[in-house]
Amino acid sequence: MSRIARAMVLTKFNAPLELKEFPLTPPPPGEILVRIESSGICGSDLHMWKGNDPRTPLPIILGHEGVGRIESIDHGREDVLGQPLHAGDRVIWDRGVPCMKCYYCQIRKQPSLCPNRKVYGINLSSSEPPHLRGSHADYIYLFPETKLIKLDDSLPPEIFSAAACSGATAAHAIELADIQPEDTVVILGAGSLGLFAERLALDRGASQVVVVGTARSRYKLEMAKIFGAEHVIIYDETTIEERIDFVKNLTHGRGADVVIEASGAAKSVEQSVHYLGRGGKLLLAGAAVPIGDIKFQIYESVVSKNVTIQGVWVSDTTHLYQSVSLVTRHSDLFKKMVTRVFPLEKANEAFQQLLEGKAIKIALKPGLEM
Amino acid sequence: MSRIARAMVLTKFNAPLELKEFPLTPPPPGEILVRIESSGICGSDLHMWKGNDPRTPLPIILGHEGVGRIESIDHGREDVLGQPLHAGDRVIWDRGVPCMKCYYCQIRKQPSLCPNRKVYGINLSSSEPPHLRGSHADYIYLFPETKLIKLDDSLPPEIFSAAACSGATAAHAIELADIQPEDTVVILGAGSLGLFAERLALDRGASQVVVVGTARSRYKLEMAKIFGAEHVIIYDETTIEERIDFVKNLTHGRGADVVIEASGAAKSVEQSVHYLGRGGKLLLAGAAVPIGDIKFQIYESVVSKNVTIQGVWVSDTTHLYQSVSLVTRHSDLFKKMVTRVFPLEKANEAFQQLLEGKAIKIALKPGLEM
Amino acid sequence: MSRIARAMVLTKFNAPLELKEFPLTPPPPGEILVRIESSGICGSDLHMWKGNDPRTPLPIILGHEGVGRIESIDHGREDVLGQPLHAGDRVIWDRGVPCMKCYYCQIRKQPSLCPNRKVYGINLSSSEPPHLRGSHADYIYLFPETKLIKLDDSLPPEIFSAAACSGATAAHAIELADIQPEDTVVILGAGSLGLFAERLALDRGASQVVVVGTARSRYKLEMAKIFGAEHVIIYDETTIEERIDFVKNLTHGRGADVVIEASGAAKSVEQSVHYLGRGGKLLLAGAAVPIGDIKFQIYESVVSKNVTIQGVWVSDTTHLYQSVSLVTRHSDLFKKMVTRVFPLEKANEAFQQLLEGKAIKIALKPGLEM
Amino acid sequence: MSRIARAMVLTKFNAPLELKEFPLTPPPPGEILVRIESSGICGSDLHMWKGNDPRTPLPIILGHEGVGRIESIDHGREDVLGQPLHAGDRVIWDRGVPCMKCYYCQIRKQPSLCPNRKVYGINLSSSEPPHLRGSHADYIYLFPETKLIKLDDSLPPEIFSAAACSGATAAHAIELADIQPEDTVVILGAGSLGLFAERLALDRGASQVVVVGTARSRYKLEMAKIFGAEHVIIYDETTIEERIDFVKNLTHGRGADVVIEASGAAKSVEQSVHYLGRGGKLLLAGAAVPIGDIKFQIYESVVSKNVTIQGVWVSDTTHLYQSVSLVTRHSDLFKKMVTRVFPLEKANEAFQQLLEGKAIKIALKPGLEM
Repeated sequence: MSRIARAMVLTKFNAPLELKEFPLTPPPPGEILVRIESSGICGSDLHMWKGNDPRTPLPIILGHEGVGRIESIDHGREDVLGQPLHAGDRVIWDRGVPCMKCYYCQIRKQPSLCPNRKVYGINLSSSEPPHLRGSHADYIYLFPETKLIKLDDSLPPEIFSAAACSGATAAHAIELADIQPEDTVVILGAGSLGLFAERLALDRGASQVVVVGTARSRYKLEMAKIFGAEHVIIYDETTIEERIDFVKNLTHGRGADVVIEASGAAKSVEQSVHYLGRGGKLLLAGAAVPIGDIKFQIYESVVSKNVTIQGVWVSDTTHLYQSVSLVTRHSDLFKKMVTRVFPLEKANEAFQQLLEGKAIKIALKPGLEM
Repeated sequence: MSRIARAMVLTKFNAPLELKEFPLTPPPPGEILVRIESSGICGSDLHMWKGNDPRTPLPIILGHEGVGRIESIDHGREDVLGQPLHAGDRVIWDRGVPCMKCYYCQIRKQPSLCPNRKVYGINLSSSEPPHLRGSHADYIYLFPETKLIKLDDSLPPEIFSAAACSGATAAHAIELADIQPEDTVVILGAGSLGLFAERLALDRGASQVVVVGTARSRYKLEMAKIFGAEHVIIYDETTIEERIDFVKNLTHGRGADVVIEASGAAKSVEQSVHYLGRGGKLLLAGAAVPIGDIKFQIYESVVSKNVTIQGVWVSDTTHLYQSVSLVTRHSDLFKKMVTRVFPLEKANEAFQQLLEGKAIKIALKPGLEM
Repeated sequence: MSRIARAMVLTKFNAPLELKEFPLTPPPPGEILVRIESSGICGSDLHMWKGNDPRTPLPIILGHEGVGRIESIDHGREDVLGQPLHAGDRVIWDRGVPCMKCYYCQIRKQPSLCPNRKVYGINLSSSEPPHLRGSHADYIYLFPETKLIKLDDSLPPEIFSAAACSGATAAHAIELADIQPEDTVVILGAGSLGLFAERLALDRGASQVVVVGTARSRYKLEMAKIFGAEHVIIYDETTIEERIDFVKNLTHGRGADVVIEASGAAKSVEQSVHYLGRGGKLLLAGAAVPIGDIKFQIYESVVSKNVTIQGVWVSDTTHLYQSVSLVTRHSDLFKKMVTRVFPLEKANEAFQQLLEGKAIKIALKPGLEM
Repeated sequence: MSRIARAMVLTKFNAPLELKEFPLTPPPPGEILVRIESSGICGSDLHMWKGNDPRTPLPIILGHEGVGRIESIDHGREDVLGQPLHAGDRVIWDRGVPCMKCYYCQIRKQPSLCPNRKVYGINLSSSEPPHLRGSHADYIYLFPETKLIKLDDSLPPEIFSAAACSGATAAHAIELADIQPEDTVVILGAGSLGLFAERLALDRGASQVVVVGTARSRYKLEMAKIFGAEHVIIYDETTIEERIDFVKNLTHGRGADVVIEASGAAKSVEQSVHYLGRGGKLLLAGAAVPIGDIKFQIYESVVSKNVTIQGVWVSDTTHLYQSVSLVTRHSDLFKKMVTRVFPLEKANEAFQQLLEGKAIKIALKPGLEM
């Protein structure tokens, strides 16, 4: 191999990504080289591009929702389900590579809390060889400890991309929500994270889901209905009192059992607790970058209602497995969710579309004809 | 019976309790009449006296930490452990009487969330017969559904009083904290609630407890040490940064696994989250009356650390059982905690002592010689 | 009211039920009188009829799967969801009435373990007034503490009957199984209990369900497929090794995550543990009467695989709520499951059909034209 | 380094261990070389010596309870608590090295179930270089993925040895038992496993522990009392009915909440379930080798009491951490438990003492003067 791989590189915040070329060298010992077929653009990519995510080194190849085909792998490797892996197999992988040695990895068994966790496309700069550590590229090198899952070859690769981040994070939220059969779940935000959370909640036994979205993204609420929401509410056309009443009417006056904040907007976070009934749980999954101070009426909203507020930080391989399984099972839904694909080199246009709220999920496809 | 029972009645907020007499009639069908031996004064009594607790009807006989001897009971009654109950037995009882019919009582099996929960000395006015529904009195009438626990006769009754409220609430907090073996627990506040939480945490397997208290209540921190705290910190003589560093030094740099806010002070609640390490849990047990809005840096303190903030609302019979067992097991400690006893009719003096922070726990004893 | 109610009474084991008449007196204080619309015949009825269930007093009106319309109720009563109840409303109720005073009810919060639990049609003799304590009758009297759920009037009542017992017990099994997303579940037995367990497991997030049934009940396995089973296996046409291999092939060689034994047959119980993979859970839900000693290879099957064997004893109101909600949500499926209805007075014929394995579920309908 | 290390090697079942010498070569890349200070002899060693443990390859250096000082380690390594590790540090390590790549390690997060788990002294033959993979030796080589914990230098090393196996396994049992505050726990067997389980249960909040042992090992029951057991029962001097009655008398007639079978004897396993009350849990921790079929009365003992039978298979790093912390906290107790130390070369004598039941725990100490 003495070939070349292209990648879109972020060298300066708020400036266009630059198409750069890197040498395609043989992978370091134990590493896996994957040819990217689809790289989802996540809301976090936009945050990082703006410089709002404190984890971002420069220069960096963004992209942590990669799906691709194995180009080179050591003999005898298996995926986390025990399936043999060979060159040519289509795979997805846990974007995070925890150290598996620390207190959080081994004693708490919560690798998502590992302070040494390396994350493709998020905290690995492209300045160090082998450079290709983000999926907005033709190829990516994966550390030996990376956990992979072999994918169903008969489905389009781009429907799996979001499973790597928003899907897995939603699965983490659902796990922490400890959803009980017949729970009423309110989801704030109808983007990729919200849609995953919605479908996961329903598949976990929630009796009904209410999705709140904005008028600007009315098409997202339509998608939420297709995904199974019994009810959708347009945020900017209702008052918070009306929305609370709506939820109470659905629950014999009690309020929601679970609220999943999936928008990350400060106003939404502040209001989120009001939807809950006694003993309810609020999952804060959307606030992935600093949004300042949020005020809660501690006695009225939290203590006297025995409410739980739970931060949801990233995800681990369990959650990736659950979200990949979800996409496989509901592939028809997820085909609808990935609203657009762009060639790799059009990444800046794709970012722009997302900044303008014009798509739920866009995947970059390196080989795509323009 | 055509006797008279005295009770201290709150007829007006912020005004002295008035000693009033009530007729001691035979109990309504199925009810139990108990002669009060000890009635603990809780921090909530002070809040209610000031009119700060939204649950308080007037007039009311306060007192929800009662211990006494059965005066009259139907044949065949047992306590929750299956021990037969007879006149003359010393008992304590769950201050709350949930309806056992609603969604929270039956489907969630969380009677502490019951919206119909009656609470002796808290939401039952003395205006309705049989009037005596609070324990700051010679006698109390207990509804048929009241859950009782027979007490060890050989121990002084006043050491059990606090088990009925702060002990049970602390047990609820510990249950919700889901303490793991070797956890480091920080307790904010060294009053009765904090001391119970401390001892319960240690008995549940916490490896070390740090108690934070004020200089004014230095004697409470001494008590916290006697109760088993490895470390105590004086709030007003340290900065928040120093306190956080202290906890990090105890935990290999990680921060606390569990923080129990047991003071209810707004400033303490606001700072409480900062002691936590990744994946830590904050139990809000002290804020039993409205304290206004509390601000949290949601991304930095909650989301990116996967932190749980848990409101702790009152308690149920499980928690009463745990706190009564704790007091029985550690009776020597709890003898030290009840720093003073007053005759019933000196309730206003006792309230004053507590308002001035001069005692951890005071019990009113109806028969006590002045 | 000076009317008459008919009931089918078991006066002698293994002898035909006798149609008897009882006076329809006004209900005792606080009790609810319900006119039965549908009374499901449960496998336990057959056991009791044979004298195999140690709980059975004689004479007894069997029937613990009742659905009916309220004939008389105190003003102001609500169901467990807070819905007002009035005469004429269609209801179902928890067949068990725990004491709500004992250690299990209050401290463990597991009313299904209450040793004082009264059960309609199971441990209440018809010899004591008001006699009508089983649902194979025109009317039933319900104790004041009975938990009711109002039913959707637009659906046929008989589809709910089984929710009261096999549905609720299956919900209890599923709760104890703590099913995780993507679990593979094997269900042994395709009767009412097995079908409920199957659908509940799928609604809880199981990825695939395998149902094992007998050749005699091939039509039940067809129903299992309609209910959503990916795979069914005919017990008498396969070896245990073949069945184990089948399950391993579905699970990347691991074995089942959860096995629910829903047949109660000794041979099936003995084999049940073999389907499990490491860390798997076996729920024993079918063995509702003594079946003698069962042997397990403790090291090979339980210890070295870290397996859980869990007894499942009856159910509580939470489980009734879940099973009623399931039937409402999947009413089309459950319409198919109730294969036959008989008039009340034909109960002996109905019992015979079930003894011969000719139906999954039969409901007795008092008003039905013969 | 061109030195020599001695080790006791099992080359033939039931034959004396042979003292052999191995070259002390520089460790393979990333591995850690540890000089053994204390190597506990576990009950499993005896089973393996007899050829009863199906995992045993020959030849093998037994010993999986090692404590020692680091001889050689890569720069920058830390223990699982984040403490830097250097040559000269005293350490203990997880005897199991799971693959951290499979379904059990990553998706279930239960590395104790990993089918690829390598275990020092148990399933690693001495025939392959670097040979020294058991702790009954002067030195041991530890794989790079081994999890270590730095030990308190001021305590004797031999008190920690058993923490590596029986302590960690007991911690696993306690975790699976999900002990609740005030539980009554019965422990069958007063060896090292039983004593650890006892102390862990008490530290987790059990209100009382009953330990059952044999007359032959009366001194072990004395130790159980020193460890905190309120009650001990001599197995061969009581009937099972008497023992059950004894436990019921302690529990208001209910029976034990948790039973931990820590003897592994078939008869004890068979009887173990009878001590349980409704909803009780049986932890099978002692049966570490095949003991044949065990019979249970499924309806009477398991189903109708809603009982849990839980296999306990080995342990992981969480459990090691808990057991090491326990020993540190209660070092005075554990000093008493290690009844004897022998020089390495006297291993056969030590094995003989244990086979004859003459000691609770013996540690081999390579440097010890004979």
